Amino acid sequence: MPELRRDPVSGRWVILSIERGKRPSDFASPSQKRKVGGFCPFCPGNEYTAPPEIVSFRPAGTPPNSPGWTLRVVPNKFPALHIHGELSKRGEGIFDMMSGIGAHEVIIEAPDHRLSLSTMSVKAVEDVLWAYYFRLTDLKKDPRFKYALVFKNEGEIAGASLEHTHSQLIALPIIPKTVQEEMKSSREYYSSKERCLFCDIIRQEIEAGKRLIYENDKYVAISPFAPRDPFETWILPKRHESKFHAPDKSFSSLAEILQTMLKRLDAVLDTPPYNFILHTSPFREEINDYYHWHIEILPRLVKRAGFEWGSGSFINPTSPEDATKFLREAIA
Amino acid sequence: MPELRRDPVSGRWVILSIERGKRPSDFASPSQKRKVGGFCPFCPGNEYTAPPEIVSFRPAGTPPNSPGWTLRVVPNKFPALHIHGELSKRGEGIFDMMSGIGAHEVIIEAPDHRLSLSTMSVKAVEDVLWAYYFRLTDLKKDPRFKYALVFKNEGEIAGASLEHTHSQLIALPIIPKTVQEEMKSSREYYSSKERCLFCDIIRQEIEAGKRLIYENDKYVAISPFAPRDPFETWILPKRHESKFHAPDKSFSSLAEILQTMLKRLDAVLDTPPYNFILHTSPFREEINDYYHWHIEILPRLVKRAGFEWGSGSFINPTSPEDATKFLREAIA
Repeated sequence: MPELRRDPVSGRWVILSIERGKRPSDFASPSQKRKVGGFCPFCPGNEYTAPPEIVSFRPAGTPPNSPGWTLRVVPNKFPALHIHGELSKRGEGIFDMMSGIGAHEVIIEAPDHRLSLSTMSVKAVEDVLWAYYFRLTDLKKDPRFKYALVFKNEGEIAGASLEHTHSQLIALPIIPKTVQEEMKSSREYYSSKERCLFCDIIRQEIEAGKRLIYENDKYVAISPFAPRDPFETWILPKRHESKFHAPDKSFSSLAEILQTMLKRLDAVLDTPPYNFILHTSPFREEINDYYHWHIEILPRLVKRAGFEWGSGSFINPTSPEDATKFLREAIA
Repeated sequence: MPELRRDPVSGRWVILSIERGKRPSDFASPSQKRKVGGFCPFCPGNEYTAPPEIVSFRPAGTPPNSPGWTLRVVPNKFPALHIHGELSKRGEGIFDMMSGIGAHEVIIEAPDHRLSLSTMSVKAVEDVLWAYYFRLTDLKKDPRFKYALVFKNEGEIAGASLEHTHSQLIALPIIPKTVQEEMKSSREYYSSKERCLFCDIIRQEIEAGKRLIYENDKYVAISPFAPRDPFETWILPKRHESKFHAPDKSFSSLAEILQTMLKRLDAVLDTPPYNFILHTSPFREEINDYYHWHIEILPRLVKRAGFEWGSGSFINPTSPEDATKFLREAIA
């Protein structure tokens, strides 16, 4: 019998169509292993093809926009929003609009075209997280922005137009709908219970165990109770933290659990395409008792179509309990 | 300069990234014209491969599940939800779940494998709408169901696993999140204005004209103010109607406008993949003053990735005003 499950954070219902009961090998997705060859605008030596870098990690003395870097942040060459200009808001009858002000940046995570977040050194993953942190901290100062969404598209199916390992950041003059929904339900939960919804989820999952994939000293990786996608994985800090920041000035534990999970997904699903998303509190309410920042990893194994777009629900052929077993036993 | 626009119905913000200003020919999507050849379970003669038909339009005297039909509705062979069983609801700590009870049906729209909704006769399209109507009216009697979502996936990219023209229906024991959101905002709008939000949108669009694509005696086709996808098109009844039903016992005007729009999308975008969704009021509040049923057509021309999943916003490279011009001038 299939099952309907409600995600308490977003409020969406998910259909676990478990008889379709797919095992990892049933998902025939093209492996995202790197194929080297051809011109890549993100490779060292081709820095001139991108707009000038915003931040880079490079040896002292090397000039900006030249080789030698280990990580670069550059403006997106084809930005969805523009950084220059005034934020003007207006109406058109019953409709609301504003000028398309924002920042759209690309984090080039490593110079070597053959690497991915799961194959680079854990220290390099830590640097990627530092880059997110530096950019979020900087963009927060711009009074036009209310939120910055960090996300990664890995593989063409997941929306990556370039193979070279990178993530993106879009700063927005609005709080995204998805984040607003999560804020709302966690605020309501807190106001009735005086406890953080995510803290309660973490506590329950650690006790129950059946959706607990992995934990280290500071973080936990779980299969969410109502996953949209097969093998969807969330990474959360065990202690209540409302904003993504560097606890004890270190991202080492986060880099460790993030890479461990990506390595395991690679092992179980043969280097699948995936998206990940960093959800943190909006800039103007970064410190609060009810929201709990986290990373959502969504392997792109099944198509979303009319039902998903029309309902906001999802049909998932793999239960999170099964996914947990595979990911727990995976040897990366 | 890009623009941020808010859809007043769903509340989602859309980024119109208009410098990317894509013309129809920039969307290289594989044409969905039919390729005949190979075994098709929906073709006449192969009725035995599907579960027994629920409804069919066929000459008097021909036995069910045999050739001769012009339209068939069958249960989905791999249903996401099960029709038999009791609807049981329970909690698991902070989580909510229920048994996966529902109906998952396939509407085989025509016997001829070469046809699509845009190339069959307009009378055949009318029959498809009648089939939706009969199934909705029937499923409504089942007290376990709160909603039935009718949708169509046209083309592999849009999620169709079989080429033979068909749509689907999923009856659910819940009201889908997307419909709930639309109900909520139209209820709020009505309670402050005593007017239907959709009626106001239609009035404004007819007056302004710049997003009005086509109208006939009873229906209007518009590009929504904040479209998720390039060439997204909505079809709405001009008069307030809260539920999809047969006005004056006829679907002829709806068939005419639906096919006209699909023909124009085919002409402008070279037979693109698309999804369409029928949004009508939930079974238990079918007659009301605030919700207005409609069809949303979403051509699948751009990929949705980390940003869309993480934000609930969309980046659309074509303004609805441009899309309107192309669709208005299209000769199908």
